[in-house]
Amino acid sequence: MTTTTKDSPCVHGEHTLCMPESSRKAARRRLAIAHGHLESIQRMLENPDVYCVDVLKQLKAVQGALAGTGEVVLRGHLEAHVATAESRGDTSEIVNELMHALKYT
Amino acid sequence: MTTTTKDSPCVHGEHTLCMPESSRKAARRRLAIAHGHLESIQRMLENPDVYCVDVLKQLKAVQGALAGTGEVVLRGHLEAHVATAESRGDTSEIVNELMHALKYT
Amino acid sequence: MTTTTKDSPCVHGEHTLCMPESSRKAARRRLAIAHGHLESIQRMLENPDVYCVDVLKQLKAVQGALAGTGEVVLRGHLEAHVATAESRGDTSEIVNELMHALKYT
Amino acid sequence: MTTTTKDSPCVHGEHTLCMPESSRKAARRRLAIAHGHLESIQRMLENPDVYCVDVLKQLKAVQGALAGTGEVVLRGHLEAHVATAESRGDTSEIVNELMHALKYT
Repeated sequence: MTTTTKDSPCVHGEHTLCMPESSRKAARRRLAIAHGHLESIQRMLENPDVYCVDVLKQLKAVQGALAGTGEVVLRGHLEAHVATAESRGDTSEIVNELMHALKYT
Repeated sequence: MTTTTKDSPCVHGEHTLCMPESSRKAARRRLAIAHGHLESIQRMLENPDVYCVDVLKQLKAVQGALAGTGEVVLRGHLEAHVATAESRGDTSEIVNELMHALKYT
Repeated sequence: MTTTTKDSPCVHGEHTLCMPESSRKAARRRLAIAHGHLESIQRMLENPDVYCVDVLKQLKAVQGALAGTGEVVLRGHLEAHVATAESRGDTSEIVNELMHALKYT
Repeated sequence: MTTTTKDSPCVHGEHTLCMPESSRKAARRRLAIAHGHLESIQRMLENPDVYCVDVLKQLKAVQGALAGTGEVVLRGHLEAHVATAESRGDTSEIVNELMHALKYT
């Protein structure tokens, strides 16, 4: 357990918007899988006889795993922080920030 | 140096279609960067005070690095294996396989 | 001006969640551009001398215009309907629905 | 039937690389469907009672139809023009051009 201080990444003015614990745990699990998968591609690439299309497919599978991790995080954020924005009064800040993050798609 | 055997992943009938060495090296470099980046997100997620949008942005950046790795592999495949398909006589097999791999986008 | 009836697409139980007027107008403008662009590709394809890569580029440009239209609609939805979900008490319905729609990416 | 002149979009130096007729016809069919679908979204947006998520879903469906059109064109290009590049001697030009077009993804 960590005590959130004013420097914590999830402190926004007087509000604390830390990632919901369930999202954090689910994201960690998924990312561990993606991490193992990525390392398997690194091992594939150590073999001079590797075939391009095999690597392309595995790269796309890891991208899918990362997208799945992103969805877990996004859902938690929408539920915990976006849906409550009006009551905090920071709707435009929260929406601008999220649109910018999604822009990276 | 490895001697390609009939079981090598890049042996296709009588043809050997191993990933070009330059593509393999470039892909390994990029994947090492993506690997380090992914591990930094795993560390972020160990902190209960992590903020969702920070994680979303980092996930997208790693997806971008993986897409960049895919482009290196795809270019090498197009140049070395697709552009030479007619002379080998395996155009439809090579194109079907590539369309399927790209389908994962 | 239209009088919203209980059958209107934007009526959700006792709540009315119509697209904000500014989003609707901006989306219509962008879609008109995408529409014109798509028709220009249709004309390109009437020419037997059309070159594949020219068409690929124009298709991607129209996809970009549609993505831009989606962003306008998404922003309006986040601000007007998601950010107010907690006060209406329909957070999980609104988030589930949006995650499903984004899933189409 | 059109007689390809030196100004035709598919003339590349001494080579003619017009879109295969089957790809052109299939792309035209798919684009006509996408066109009709896009117009149905435009009608949706004329209704002030339109609901954001309904529009988001329809936009994604049209993007899917455009991606499907792109796949038809890409396949035809890979088979007719990329797979024959080595025999023409223009591999790097053809691959550079295609990587650039795919970059728009």
